[in-house]
Amino acid sequence: MKHTIHSHQNHVTWDNAIPPVHEIDPGEKLRFEVQDASNGQLSYRSTAADVAALDFGQVNPVNGPVYVKGAQPGDTLEVHIENFGPQSWGWTAVIPGFGLLHEAFPDPYLKTWDLSGGRAQFTDGIEIPIAPFPGTIGTALPEPGAHSIVPPRKNGGNMDIRHLTRGTKLYLPVWTEGALFSVGDTHAAQGDGEVCGTAIEAPMDIDLSFKLHKGKQIAEPQFETPGPLHHTSSGKGFYVTTGHAEDLLTAVKKAIEYMIEHITTTYRLSDVEAYALCSVAVDLKISEVVDMPNHLVSAYLPLDIFK
Amino acid sequence: MKHTIHSHQNHVTWDNAIPPVHEIDPGEKLRFEVQDASNGQLSYRSTAADVAALDFGQVNPVNGPVYVKGAQPGDTLEVHIENFGPQSWGWTAVIPGFGLLHEAFPDPYLKTWDLSGGRAQFTDGIEIPIAPFPGTIGTALPEPGAHSIVPPRKNGGNMDIRHLTRGTKLYLPVWTEGALFSVGDTHAAQGDGEVCGTAIEAPMDIDLSFKLHKGKQIAEPQFETPGPLHHTSSGKGFYVTTGHAEDLLTAVKKAIEYMIEHITTTYRLSDVEAYALCSVAVDLKISEVVDMPNHLVSAYLPLDIFK
Repeated sequence: MKHTIHSHQNHVTWDNAIPPVHEIDPGEKLRFEVQDASNGQLSYRSTAADVAALDFGQVNPVNGPVYVKGAQPGDTLEVHIENFGPQSWGWTAVIPGFGLLHEAFPDPYLKTWDLSGGRAQFTDGIEIPIAPFPGTIGTALPEPGAHSIVPPRKNGGNMDIRHLTRGTKLYLPVWTEGALFSVGDTHAAQGDGEVCGTAIEAPMDIDLSFKLHKGKQIAEPQFETPGPLHHTSSGKGFYVTTGHAEDLLTAVKKAIEYMIEHITTTYRLSDVEAYALCSVAVDLKISEVVDMPNHLVSAYLPLDIFK
Repeated sequence: MKHTIHSHQNHVTWDNAIPPVHEIDPGEKLRFEVQDASNGQLSYRSTAADVAALDFGQVNPVNGPVYVKGAQPGDTLEVHIENFGPQSWGWTAVIPGFGLLHEAFPDPYLKTWDLSGGRAQFTDGIEIPIAPFPGTIGTALPEPGAHSIVPPRKNGGNMDIRHLTRGTKLYLPVWTEGALFSVGDTHAAQGDGEVCGTAIEAPMDIDLSFKLHKGKQIAEPQFETPGPLHHTSSGKGFYVTTGHAEDLLTAVKKAIEYMIEHITTTYRLSDVEAYALCSVAVDLKISEVVDMPNHLVSAYLPLDIFK
């Protein structure tokens, strides 16, 4: 019987002064009951008006911190992503002022998903493959005080790496005594980039085990994940838009703008629906980063989401 | 019997005043005998000294231009990538002053590949899956004069998109009467990003057919490619390094620096060998581009290249 870190045992900033909620020896397994990224502010019946009213001081809670005995700065904490519990519902939002194209999409938008059947239907005829992962996972920072949980940092955190799926071994740098590990922000699915700012945000349980590598030092998180990668084996292939620019962010924006145009003209979705669909299903790849002065970014839409 | 555009029928800048070498009707197929990106300056027996002596005015030749009857600005040229001929040899170089980490790698480096057996062996025990594609493919630009062929542009060009593999339908904007299509710079394999600046550069034939979409206007190239994507179904999984930064290019550099360190410590390759291996096999993904102020880029090493 593994110990459970409950959803109320959470915190919403990285602060190494937050007292641990539990202590483990390396080798132990834990279950985390993860709340959704709104921290319970949204529900399946919520609307765009509820998105506009979100209290940002409460978003992106992480369960923990967990003190790992023997962990010291300069060690690496290996986190084995063992299993995910079932997902009953999820949400995808466009939040004013947030997201890649926040200037073009100033209004709140909300899509809620019924995930209880093990399927994620966007609209009639569009279904997203479920591939759960934790959006935020990390150790405490060495710098004192409260640090925003929104950006990813050298401790991991809100990395939103969609391949932290079942079977992944994640390596996190230990920056403080006891590592002070936390996890949250579980996603049922996401595209590489998470362009609208949210994935299929879904509360779920996650089972993790831990191993400590004494004296193995890494500067930022690394991981090993089983193949094949989720979303990449679309039997129907991919439709891809490209954007070139002297800076990568402009290239990303162009590729996603073209993809939104492609989706709205091909599948009769609105602009904001296409933007949200990109966030949960479209993958951003850096095709080339050397042919000066222009870089090229490609946005890949897997065609097997269209039934 | 399809018409052939021979390797000497090439040019090394984008210039819409270059006279067409051939004229086709939409629907026709063509074979292009593509020279390697050094334009014959390197051979299987070349060394790093030959890289240092490269004449950059001659690099990256493209076969053409081909005049497509009826093509006008505002149309889209669909290019169907039908087939590739066999590859006998290839090269991968670090060219001084070029590549993502050119400051850390100031010296010329050259690896030549015997591809005649249908295999691409990097060193004993490391083999790269062959997945040929054209690195440079495009139409003429509307602006007069000679434009460098190195950067990708709104006409396509040196996009180095590794998924322009067999069966791909590439959509190119037409900017001038007749489209003035050219193709070259064939690669036997490459990772997303092409970080050292070169792929497995290999001369080969490429068969293409063409279709014209009158009045269909796109701002930059788009394409549709069959699934599953090459390199993504590694049964052995992937080792991944991550880099976060406020700008994507810094995040890319960090992820690749960490990957070079991982490869050199794990597989006993030199730094420059690891850098070249990243260029031909490691894929750059933008994991998140919204968690302000930091972006996160991940570099994926497919583990099935290690035998």
